[in-house]
Amino acid sequence: MTYAAAVLRRSDELATFSEEEGRLTRRYATPALRQAGEQVGQWMEEAGMAVRRDQIGNVIGRLDDGGSRTLLIGSHLDTVRDAGRYDGMLGVLVAIACLERLRDHGRSLPYAVELLGFADEEGVRFGTGYLGSSVVAGRFDTADMDRRDSDGVTLPDAVRAFGGDPDGLAGARREPADLIGYYEVHIEQGPVLEAEGVPLGVVTAIAGQTGGRVVFTGEAGHAGTVPMALRRDAMCAAAEFVSAVERVARDRDGVVATVGTVEVEPGARNVIPGRVVLSLDVRHASDSVRESVLTRLRDRAGAIADARGVGLTWQVGKGTRSVDTSPALTELVAEAVAATGHRVVRLPSGAGHDAVMLSTIAPIAMLFVRCAGGVSHNPAESVTVDDIAAAIDATTRFLELVG
Amino acid sequence: MTYAAAVLRRSDELATFSEEEGRLTRRYATPALRQAGEQVGQWMEEAGMAVRRDQIGNVIGRLDDGGSRTLLIGSHLDTVRDAGRYDGMLGVLVAIACLERLRDHGRSLPYAVELLGFADEEGVRFGTGYLGSSVVAGRFDTADMDRRDSDGVTLPDAVRAFGGDPDGLAGARREPADLIGYYEVHIEQGPVLEAEGVPLGVVTAIAGQTGGRVVFTGEAGHAGTVPMALRRDAMCAAAEFVSAVERVARDRDGVVATVGTVEVEPGARNVIPGRVVLSLDVRHASDSVRESVLTRLRDRAGAIADARGVGLTWQVGKGTRSVDTSPALTELVAEAVAATGHRVVRLPSGAGHDAVMLSTIAPIAMLFVRCAGGVSHNPAESVTVDDIAAAIDATTRFLELVG
Repeated sequence: MTYAAAVLRRSDELATFSEEEGRLTRRYATPALRQAGEQVGQWMEEAGMAVRRDQIGNVIGRLDDGGSRTLLIGSHLDTVRDAGRYDGMLGVLVAIACLERLRDHGRSLPYAVELLGFADEEGVRFGTGYLGSSVVAGRFDTADMDRRDSDGVTLPDAVRAFGGDPDGLAGARREPADLIGYYEVHIEQGPVLEAEGVPLGVVTAIAGQTGGRVVFTGEAGHAGTVPMALRRDAMCAAAEFVSAVERVARDRDGVVATVGTVEVEPGARNVIPGRVVLSLDVRHASDSVRESVLTRLRDRAGAIADARGVGLTWQVGKGTRSVDTSPALTELVAEAVAATGHRVVRLPSGAGHDAVMLSTIAPIAMLFVRCAGGVSHNPAESVTVDDIAAAIDATTRFLELVG
Repeated sequence: MTYAAAVLRRSDELATFSEEEGRLTRRYATPALRQAGEQVGQWMEEAGMAVRRDQIGNVIGRLDDGGSRTLLIGSHLDTVRDAGRYDGMLGVLVAIACLERLRDHGRSLPYAVELLGFADEEGVRFGTGYLGSSVVAGRFDTADMDRRDSDGVTLPDAVRAFGGDPDGLAGARREPADLIGYYEVHIEQGPVLEAEGVPLGVVTAIAGQTGGRVVFTGEAGHAGTVPMALRRDAMCAAAEFVSAVERVARDRDGVVATVGTVEVEPGARNVIPGRVVLSLDVRHASDSVRESVLTRLRDRAGAIADARGVGLTWQVGKGTRSVDTSPALTELVAEAVAATGHRVVRLPSGAGHDAVMLSTIAPIAMLFVRCAGGVSHNPAESVTVDDIAAAIDATTRFLELVG
């Protein structure tokens, strides 16, 4: 079996470790995640790595061929509900395949590799995105210790049940002194590589993102008895704003802006909407572009509300800043991709990744792998064996170039 | 106490018969509705009426002063959830007050009056609007017998538990032969009379209404990774349509059109909406105007969907036809309002009423009473004692004019 075929088979095998019959759901500290981590640990050992768990339950394999410095590689092993089998896991499995391949060819690296299988990136159970990598980066927010899952289990109890140590999380921080950098392979989760006709993408930055709520407050009323001229319909205001979000985003290259949820109150066919709560999500690789888009959107929302005599509540925070990948490491990734014979396509990541957390302790680099239709967070997530082979080729080359 | 003050007091008293502590909810065939009906029956008897219940549980009081013909008067005693205390009940209580006043002044009518307290108009429990009046009109839909409430109780069982006879509903039809007409007093449930500065309104028609669902089906995707140009965002299509609904309705005098519910799937801040289901409600006193508005809206929805490569499902039925009030009876209502010294304001009803059902067996007339802010279906529903006095004056005069 080729290395790429083995990655596909292992992806299928990991997908059997699920909380739910018939679909893949694997949240933090569940038996399904424990089983997946044990299986990954076994594959790491078979690839020659020394395997341990840290205080949050990340699976860490170390291959110490030589040298005093270490390259971190990682991705996550948890999933969303009803997930695909590649988002997260692919990055770990591709790395294992590369190390096996190097070993099979009798080649060693002049530095140590630590491969991190993060226990929580999606944050589905406790609302804690990047939980696993935040602990490695020493950025864990202790306020999160008060969180409970939907069954009332506290985060510290879940950490303990998972074999971790909630009081020792600070000690799990990876000291940056000896680090070469952090490298992550991930499916693109978008349609750009497919549209470009290439299997791989070199990530230039991880876009900053701002999320929040926008609330329009009008006046509810009977849909049959209130003439149009006397209405203050919160949904009509919200609809105008949704159109403005789309228009403003289209105006600026690379901006994405989304209204993903709409809650209408009271919410009945025969009642004029009195209040509408929208979610807003704005991303761009440049923080200043993102901020100027948000300013325009806030102005538009204010103008719409004023013109309609409708109230506006703008609950949109500062958001997270964009993170650039390391120019030096990223040039090596581009060189490695070029060595596979494919055209080098550079693109920012609109999704967040564990690399955001790791960027606080090491230079980062990321490689994207094309996925069918750009679909992710969905059982239809799909990656071809040829594209995985390209990712293994490029990553192996990258590991050699780093040396 | 004045007759109007007594109506206010009785409204408060009826509001204590509720399924829920602290707020008024009185659905069909509940103990609360039984108690309200018994109280209303007692007031009817005190006003000199012979009281009975029909096969669905409507309370019917008959006052037979003379003549071979009968005027029906009615409104409903059930409520929505967390209701106001006037929607429905006011019409019954004003009629009782008028009959008491005529009796107190030693005046009799040259025809019989039958006062109907309908057991279900809102249809909250079984989704059966106009249930009580449909039985009286002989328009009960036997397919409704299969309905169950949220606890699984069938409609026939509820009818039996309420002391009715589900097998005898056809026999409850009021034969039209001797009927003078049907008269209903109701709060306006809209802001027009308040804007006009008058307590009473003469209803010219009950608007036809079309309701339905409009579904836009695009493609879900990651809010961070799918460029704007590659999106097929169902919510952006829906927003454009909501704006079109508002614009088209404003274009035609008297049209009201409302999108009261919006369901977004999958419905997450970081996911592009893949499917949006909107409710649509369109009303006008002219069926041809309503139909032309619906044609325009369907065309607009189709154009929006086509331009965006989004799917459209148009699940909008024929709707209910508009019903004109009887010109002859309505002239008497207008004359009675004029006799109170107030300006005569004529308006269509955008809400449906039991009069729609009764129109199939008798000429109908309706009188609207101003309510604060046009608010209904809400505990804030409010009517002044002066406006109730005006309604009693006008109705008493109408009863004399009919004779």
